[in-house]
Amino acid sequence: MSKQGSLSAMNAVTIKDVASAAGVSVATASRVLSGHPATSPASRTKVESAAKELGFMPNAQARSLRSTKTDSIALLISDLRNPYFSDLAHAVEQHARTAGLMTFIGNANEDAAQQDDFLATMLSRRVDGLVIVPQGLNEESNQPSEMMNRVLSSGIPTIFVDRALPGVQVPAITANSAQALDEAVATLKSLGHQNIAFVGGPKHASTALERYSAFETALANNGLVGDEALHFVGDFQPASGALAAQWLLENPAKPSAVIIADAPMSIGALRVWRELGVRVGADLSVTTFDEVDAMLIHDPPIATIGHDLSQMGKMAVQALREVMAGQKPEPEELISKFTLRPSVAPAKATQVMEGKVRP
Amino acid sequence: MSKQGSLSAMNAVTIKDVASAAGVSVATASRVLSGHPATSPASRTKVESAAKELGFMPNAQARSLRSTKTDSIALLISDLRNPYFSDLAHAVEQHARTAGLMTFIGNANEDAAQQDDFLATMLSRRVDGLVIVPQGLNEESNQPSEMMNRVLSSGIPTIFVDRALPGVQVPAITANSAQALDEAVATLKSLGHQNIAFVGGPKHASTALERYSAFETALANNGLVGDEALHFVGDFQPASGALAAQWLLENPAKPSAVIIADAPMSIGALRVWRELGVRVGADLSVTTFDEVDAMLIHDPPIATIGHDLSQMGKMAVQALREVMAGQKPEPEELISKFTLRPSVAPAKATQVMEGKVRP
Repeated sequence: MSKQGSLSAMNAVTIKDVASAAGVSVATASRVLSGHPATSPASRTKVESAAKELGFMPNAQARSLRSTKTDSIALLISDLRNPYFSDLAHAVEQHARTAGLMTFIGNANEDAAQQDDFLATMLSRRVDGLVIVPQGLNEESNQPSEMMNRVLSSGIPTIFVDRALPGVQVPAITANSAQALDEAVATLKSLGHQNIAFVGGPKHASTALERYSAFETALANNGLVGDEALHFVGDFQPASGALAAQWLLENPAKPSAVIIADAPMSIGALRVWRELGVRVGADLSVTTFDEVDAMLIHDPPIATIGHDLSQMGKMAVQALREVMAGQKPEPEELISKFTLRPSVAPAKATQVMEGKVRP
Repeated sequence: MSKQGSLSAMNAVTIKDVASAAGVSVATASRVLSGHPATSPASRTKVESAAKELGFMPNAQARSLRSTKTDSIALLISDLRNPYFSDLAHAVEQHARTAGLMTFIGNANEDAAQQDDFLATMLSRRVDGLVIVPQGLNEESNQPSEMMNRVLSSGIPTIFVDRALPGVQVPAITANSAQALDEAVATLKSLGHQNIAFVGGPKHASTALERYSAFETALANNGLVGDEALHFVGDFQPASGALAAQWLLENPAKPSAVIIADAPMSIGALRVWRELGVRVGADLSVTTFDEVDAMLIHDPPIATIGHDLSQMGKMAVQALREVMAGQKPEPEELISKFTLRPSVAPAKATQVMEGKVRP
């Protein structure tokens, strides 16, 4: 595979700049940076300080010289404790391994600052490519973060997986839930549910926006009326699912069914409902995104909207290898599937949610 | 923090060796390896081939010169999809972040070959330290793998977490389950259980050996007789838990209670029991290692043996920083806790397990 990496202006610090800043010859700077033994402690200190100060990146430079392949990639996922992402990371890592590539995994922890710290480290380290679950645009500027822009202009082969950034031209492997949500809402309606709540994710995640928008379309397609009072905006993590569980029980519209936009929020919510004696299925029909183990061992098993994570990992590695080979793969979408399970049941003539709310 | 890194004999390939093998001067080799622009394509090819052939490690060399701190560490966990390890990785990563260290996570996938591939990559890349969940001794030689030995003699500051290697002098943060198992077995006995099955892990994992040994001691302490026919040797992954679930139902000794040595095996087993209509608690008392979310949303909630993973992550980062500072921290043990939950119930006078087995 040939590399088409190019350096952006802001990264183009050369060994000459380092030598000049350190007040030594280029030959001396070169010896220090290559680990040549014939260097003095004083020049080592000066050169290393200057290299650090200037953000000199011998690795990026080496890459621009089309020299060393590292046979390694980095994968930045958005939450290590979310079983959806650990399953996805496993899939990427195992498919990369099959392709002869070692994977280093980083955790953004659903936090733009942590994402950017990882990306900054990647700029100065040698990897053959990056697979990123992006944290979304900056809320004020509506642009990618400065660090994301530096990565995208650095020439490091990069793709997005699971999430994308609006307006940013990076090959992305995402999932489309329109069809699955349409089927889920149609099923709920046929079982007598009219008031369907939606527990969504944070607006920085493209998946959260896609899912809520597809839910609204599904309501309209099925002749149901959307109601902003039935929309809870969570953060994709368990604590917000627990809050959503309480919110739902106290909701004046008395929803008889709920769709939850990821597994960690469902885990948080299911625990609250169990503790309060709410019977999933009989009292409340629950559907969740992400077909992870915890949803399948739950009694009753939880209806899910999900896609094949091994396939998503495989497509991500394939797309990255195409970028590494200088090609421009098209974005690809997996189509999510709705799987009906006993957590979804007929709506009762009278809801019995009242009295289940904590005082 | 100063570094006390030293190079082992087997890693001591110098830039002179590379130059000699490439048939170029040391100055030329140095220029190529530092990314100096004044190099010819021919010499680049020769030097890079020679460096690769010889396993030249400029980074390790640079480390021995006490030069650049990278402010990054690598963490090798044994199974990314095991929620215990993703929770532990999150804890290590977040505590490292607080200490100003970026974490790169690798996945051994419960496989010694995958562990060794990751370690090989670490030998040639610059990290300030390594936190490893080791895969155990080589089954034939009863020694650490060659790659593990190379890492341990490379001078890269290294600690073990969760698991250790017998006879290998590396600071380790582990958990001790003796007390918790004693309490679990005493509780089961007081509820009338006599035949307690144990679903254990693979012998390459020190945790699997520690847990089974502590279980046998707990039986003896409580006046119960161990029975090898009640011991299932699994592999810490869900499919072996599913096999164990069937094995238990078909076991002639008709165990009325079971202790399972990790969460993924429990997830595999619980799914089988639910599908076969076995009522956890009423029909079979279940206790599992690892207090992960899936065990708490299960109905009934599952009794667990576990320890504080945030604390384990914190202790691991602390120990690694001590090694990085040239100190020799003592091994430390967390004491696991038994938490009784409704998955454990009184044994019935007559077990009703028969008839629940698939034909």
